[in-house]
Amino acid sequence: MKTIDLNCDLGESFGAYKIGNDKQVLQYITSANIACGFHAGDPHVMQKTVKIAKDYRVAVGAHPGFQDLVGFGRRNMTVSPSDVYDLVLYQLGALSAFCRANDVLLHHVKPHGALYNIAAIDSTIAEAIANATRSFDSTLLYYGLAGSKMIEAGDKAGLRTVSEVFADRTYQLDGTLTPRTEKNSVIHDPEKATHQVLQMLTNGTVQTVCGATIPIKAESICVHGDNEQAILFVKALREMLVKEGFHIKASRG
Amino acid sequence: MKTIDLNCDLGESFGAYKIGNDKQVLQYITSANIACGFHAGDPHVMQKTVKIAKDYRVAVGAHPGFQDLVGFGRRNMTVSPSDVYDLVLYQLGALSAFCRANDVLLHHVKPHGALYNIAAIDSTIAEAIANATRSFDSTLLYYGLAGSKMIEAGDKAGLRTVSEVFADRTYQLDGTLTPRTEKNSVIHDPEKATHQVLQMLTNGTVQTVCGATIPIKAESICVHGDNEQAILFVKALREMLVKEGFHIKASRG
Amino acid sequence: MKTIDLNCDLGESFGAYKIGNDKQVLQYITSANIACGFHAGDPHVMQKTVKIAKDYRVAVGAHPGFQDLVGFGRRNMTVSPSDVYDLVLYQLGALSAFCRANDVLLHHVKPHGALYNIAAIDSTIAEAIANATRSFDSTLLYYGLAGSKMIEAGDKAGLRTVSEVFADRTYQLDGTLTPRTEKNSVIHDPEKATHQVLQMLTNGTVQTVCGATIPIKAESICVHGDNEQAILFVKALREMLVKEGFHIKASRG
Amino acid sequence: MKTIDLNCDLGESFGAYKIGNDKQVLQYITSANIACGFHAGDPHVMQKTVKIAKDYRVAVGAHPGFQDLVGFGRRNMTVSPSDVYDLVLYQLGALSAFCRANDVLLHHVKPHGALYNIAAIDSTIAEAIANATRSFDSTLLYYGLAGSKMIEAGDKAGLRTVSEVFADRTYQLDGTLTPRTEKNSVIHDPEKATHQVLQMLTNGTVQTVCGATIPIKAESICVHGDNEQAILFVKALREMLVKEGFHIKASRG
Repeated sequence: MKTIDLNCDLGESFGAYKIGNDKQVLQYITSANIACGFHAGDPHVMQKTVKIAKDYRVAVGAHPGFQDLVGFGRRNMTVSPSDVYDLVLYQLGALSAFCRANDVLLHHVKPHGALYNIAAIDSTIAEAIANATRSFDSTLLYYGLAGSKMIEAGDKAGLRTVSEVFADRTYQLDGTLTPRTEKNSVIHDPEKATHQVLQMLTNGTVQTVCGATIPIKAESICVHGDNEQAILFVKALREMLVKEGFHIKASRG
Repeated sequence: MKTIDLNCDLGESFGAYKIGNDKQVLQYITSANIACGFHAGDPHVMQKTVKIAKDYRVAVGAHPGFQDLVGFGRRNMTVSPSDVYDLVLYQLGALSAFCRANDVLLHHVKPHGALYNIAAIDSTIAEAIANATRSFDSTLLYYGLAGSKMIEAGDKAGLRTVSEVFADRTYQLDGTLTPRTEKNSVIHDPEKATHQVLQMLTNGTVQTVCGATIPIKAESICVHGDNEQAILFVKALREMLVKEGFHIKASRG
Repeated sequence: MKTIDLNCDLGESFGAYKIGNDKQVLQYITSANIACGFHAGDPHVMQKTVKIAKDYRVAVGAHPGFQDLVGFGRRNMTVSPSDVYDLVLYQLGALSAFCRANDVLLHHVKPHGALYNIAAIDSTIAEAIANATRSFDSTLLYYGLAGSKMIEAGDKAGLRTVSEVFADRTYQLDGTLTPRTEKNSVIHDPEKATHQVLQMLTNGTVQTVCGATIPIKAESICVHGDNEQAILFVKALREMLVKEGFHIKASRG
Repeated sequence: MKTIDLNCDLGESFGAYKIGNDKQVLQYITSANIACGFHAGDPHVMQKTVKIAKDYRVAVGAHPGFQDLVGFGRRNMTVSPSDVYDLVLYQLGALSAFCRANDVLLHHVKPHGALYNIAAIDSTIAEAIANATRSFDSTLLYYGLAGSKMIEAGDKAGLRTVSEVFADRTYQLDGTLTPRTEKNSVIHDPEKATHQVLQMLTNGTVQTVCGATIPIKAESICVHGDNEQAILFVKALREMLVKEGFHIKASRG
């Protein structure tokens, strides 16, 4: 039986500021990427989020990002591989403390926002993340964009990797995502998004923006929980996948 | 043979900002309290500081503080025990990641600045620190002011505790430190400071500001490394202690 | 004709984080206290908020707070009068730049959260705020809790002051607000809140929690805009005041 | 009589962290670029720095940078012109408040670090800085790299501009500075540096790294004050300029 993982970014609230409907989306996903206090999240939010992820038996991953709260970690920054190694290690450790205190096993690492985007194309940054992860715990899974430098770097470091795909984003001929600055980067029609996922899982391919069909490895699907519509989409996607005979569970790499 | 521990706050630099002469003072101390990025320190500084502490075979402890970089964690803040639990856990985890990556065993926890001062007199805060420490790793030592609520809280939580004394600070009749806001709070004469330590270690007593002699438990001496004079004092103190027959080593609680 | 001012805290969003329904509440109020980037707000939010306050012809005030984003400026901190002078001056200047760029006259200063609460009872802090305000622009109005040290300090500094009252908070015999930590601190019944306001404006008195009637000076009413219910209350309050013959306009001190 | 301005970055300390020898270098310079709390500086440091700049009769300028304290504003970030407009306006206002409180006229704006480097080559960013400056106070001078987009943008906005040159940096054929990542970017020999300045001022030219002679406009020389050697160089440079008949005074654009 084929299995698939649904992952979502969680724990993005900060102090008095609330983002996301964590409890709602936790009902449908199998892996949570929890913000670690640099681009979002704070110690209290992390504690609470690890607890509720445990309640819903969802695998807990660290979601490290740039130290840029006002930019939500989405702004590219010039960082050295050594900077990245240190900041990933720091955030991994911080989240793992809440896992230990709640008897939860830390499951994976998935970089956030601009760090993710840079790591997808820059192997020195992708490797810094892999090395920090291995230094901390070599059994952790490394979630990264399917076909990207992150997957290569994880393999090279001897980590188990998880190839992540997007339901609602379009792809370029080289397998990268169409940048959000371009018009056709996002798939707004839920049916098209669902169909894209099904093709990825069934055929191992995706249709690019220019109409070509390219191979893609899909081990985890990234979903969102920041509004009611997003939650409904996740629910529908999950139901479709179950109906199609998929076993929805956290990736084992 | 009697043993004594010399501890010092380290890793307090931040980005382009340098504080302390970490390498120099590491030659004389046996335990390092390393800042964890909230009141001082950053991921790069933590990585570097754990490495050099390892080089000098000095025991590594976490030095968590309030999230108040501009105040260097020295300003009292209204925090709940639950806030403190979360922020200590976060910082413990963050530092421990650098320990794991460098094959160093995390040895102890010592709260910083205002958090230390509040925990010394407020048992709910002292216990929050103890509980966070135990949740993370029940073998960690809890360094706290001799005779304070921190020692009580550590005992209550089943942690090994280390009673800390100060060479250059004066004591009140109730065993607390004379607040820095008062004139006679600091001992500026190195000979007097050395003598105070010797009396603590030999007789288990200290002279209070009002002339009384009170009992005090001295398991670790807090020293400073932020200027040349401080380094010279640590060197002299260590030599005196060796001459008096003490074995200088990290506390085992 | 009697006039009354309705003021509300605005511009409390930060980066990707949204708080408040600024546009909605701006329809009903006459003075806006705009966060200045320390406890809430950021340069982009400040720019946007000054613009929309101008659109609604609402008077713009600075709402300086402690540099404690994660605590939303609500946590008491040990600060010196000199610290407060500097941080108020900084935030006043920052907000005034957006006023200048948008051809808006800066109208007033109202401290936020813990800074407000401390200034209400500590005259050295209340005076530091007054002095920073006067140093910056002696024509600015100083909004403070009616009958508190802030009003005294403003008078002493030669500033025009505005005595602020609360519709939904209960009062103590000495004219201070019942602390939020006590059960009966908030008036949840909108009718009771409306009635309290009317009594303040008509009789110049308020009923305390213990049943006594004490005098109170009401020049501005603090309202909230952070949820739908709050907005409805402001709307109803304003309609009642208009019906009762009040002219709703920004205070002139 | 020919005049020349010597400018230096000041007020870069933060909380307990000290950088620079502000009082020493103030004896030799004529314009101070004061950090505004984003990449360095804090309200207390800004207050103190404006005061001592006034004591030494040195012209005060704002030195806005990216909100990246740990990176000291030296890391490139992806920012929109609108982001830059807002963050420059914010910082200008904040510094100007300390000027007003100390009866000092704000004299100029010079962007810091990565913001300076980006603005030198990206006209949309250079113009955002110019527009924020003009919105705030159209009499302010815009300091920027000689021959760069900043000077163009300032001219276009109708601001007076000041063309800045460097004594200790080498130049490329197109008039840009050799990037610090390259070996020959810095002139370590004080005599060579002094000679470069003299040639710039006397002939209006500079020798590039490849040996060519190109025209350059020198209205202000950027110097450093972060160590003893730097201070000695500034002193020597000033003495040389006086001997050569230059009048050392703040630029009037």
